[in-house]
Amino acid sequence: RFYFLIFLEVLMFICKHEVQYYETDRMGITHHSNYVRWMEEARTFFLREIGWAYEKIEEEGIISPVTSISCDYKATSTFADVISIEINVKSVKSARLSFVYHMVNQNGVLVCTAASEHSFLSKNGGFVNLKRDYPSFFNLLKEHSVMQ
Amino acid sequence: RFYFLIFLEVLMFICKHEVQYYETDRMGITHHSNYVRWMEEARTFFLREIGWAYEKIEEEGIISPVTSISCDYKATSTFADVISIEINVKSVKSARLSFVYHMVNQNGVLVCTAASEHSFLSKNGGFVNLKRDYPSFFNLLKEHSVMQ
Amino acid sequence: RFYFLIFLEVLMFICKHEVQYYETDRMGITHHSNYVRWMEEARTFFLREIGWAYEKIEEEGIISPVTSISCDYKATSTFADVISIEINVKSVKSARLSFVYHMVNQNGVLVCTAASEHSFLSKNGGFVNLKRDYPSFFNLLKEHSVMQ
Amino acid sequence: RFYFLIFLEVLMFICKHEVQYYETDRMGITHHSNYVRWMEEARTFFLREIGWAYEKIEEEGIISPVTSISCDYKATSTFADVISIEINVKSVKSARLSFVYHMVNQNGVLVCTAASEHSFLSKNGGFVNLKRDYPSFFNLLKEHSVMQ
Repeated sequence: RFYFLIFLEVLMFICKHEVQYYETDRMGITHHSNYVRWMEEARTFFLREIGWAYEKIEEEGIISPVTSISCDYKATSTFADVISIEINVKSVKSARLSFVYHMVNQNGVLVCTAASEHSFLSKNGGFVNLKRDYPSFFNLLKEHSVMQ
Repeated sequence: RFYFLIFLEVLMFICKHEVQYYETDRMGITHHSNYVRWMEEARTFFLREIGWAYEKIEEEGIISPVTSISCDYKATSTFADVISIEINVKSVKSARLSFVYHMVNQNGVLVCTAASEHSFLSKNGGFVNLKRDYPSFFNLLKEHSVMQ
Repeated sequence: RFYFLIFLEVLMFICKHEVQYYETDRMGITHHSNYVRWMEEARTFFLREIGWAYEKIEEEGIISPVTSISCDYKATSTFADVISIEINVKSVKSARLSFVYHMVNQNGVLVCTAASEHSFLSKNGGFVNLKRDYPSFFNLLKEHSVMQ
Repeated sequence: RFYFLIFLEVLMFICKHEVQYYETDRMGITHHSNYVRWMEEARTFFLREIGWAYEKIEEEGIISPVTSISCDYKATSTFADVISIEINVKSVKSARLSFVYHMVNQNGVLVCTAASEHSFLSKNGGFVNLKRDYPSFFNLLKEHSVMQ
């Protein structure tokens, strides 16, 4: 049982975001566009944790535009709430990476589930083939992906 | 032919957004979270055009939280681009409204397609039945919806 | 009298900004950080009007970081308000430019007065001497400046 | 020497902000409007630390609009930088509070100094006299103020 718990902790990537006043709107709740930004915070966190910090990826000459996002808002959040954002690789292909997100508040209430897709481009605009050009990064993402 | 053109103009709801410097990121492009905000600008525009400005809806005691969004990014945009956002009602039900969006830049290039869903709540938190409680608003949305 | 009116119109640079829902906070008013962004919108407008659109300045290899800002909030604004932002050059020196701003709402109420300062750098980081290197731009700014 | 260190820690209010990708602009640096938001983060932190969390102040029926801000940008920052924001009460009067801010990056480089002023209003719009109506809060702010 003890080993099982440790095992789980290693596999989970959770970053925290405290909702700021400037993120609320006049409905009294977090404006829905901010969740899209928190997804980016979670990716930044995840990539750093696995040793491929986004600033390093950029230094390698790779840029990674977002190609799609979706959010399902399950409950509202507001100023001073602390949101835990769990991020997981959904799948990784040669030039395409997708993540899923699960956001809960400080009381364990699910506030949002989300997904995003990303491509990889070199600075001159061509697609980067992750599998061929960055196999160690590709394999690391593969290892962490939910659908292997 | 002339009448046909006028007919088209009446049916289309297009608002314009000039990309601001503060909306770009260090990739040199518009940060993807801003498209979610432009969708809101388009809704504000649409609701005002059909005579149900969002500030009036709020005065009626209705709040309308976003329940889901999705964006597919087709091409990048950047500072000083002028984006035309076409908005259409996809469907309307008693307590649920969905929109679709089509964004093109000043050269006619498609930059983003998107969708959003909304519910209607009274200020005390209960769901509002649009069809029953605001039939004129409901019918107006129905008239403008793509799927009738 | 007629000529006098025309004269005034030529000298005034006023851009409009409609307050968006995503710019409000849970106090029910425009979040104060947005006024700093509207100042940028006014600069973008002003520079384009005088023929030195910011995107062209960047193409020339000049970047112009903001070195200081200040805002005095005189009245609140909120969603659907239309703010007129008058911008004027306060002064221009070899490598330093300052603007003043005067923002009124749709009822003519003063909501904010503000100021900003800017330097000019070449892409390799050195200061650009506007007076020497871009005399036509410098003189245009000088002409429009309140303190000549 | 040991006691001296502890003493310093008690008196300083420093909160950290990691620069997010969405806070950068196409100049490659943090957009200047974000520093205004980090000042708010520092106030949120400070007020919580002294036992008057902003969400509690709001529950008391007090709102505290920002009446002025100013920022002097000393050096640029960018994605992944960790900014330490030191906040201090500059002065407190019956219905007016002012803060000063000092922001340094992870290398100890000063990136921004700033100031803000705030008033206190009751929800019906009248000014709140902090000294008379909330003496414990007033005295706490007074104790922490640089100019006593």
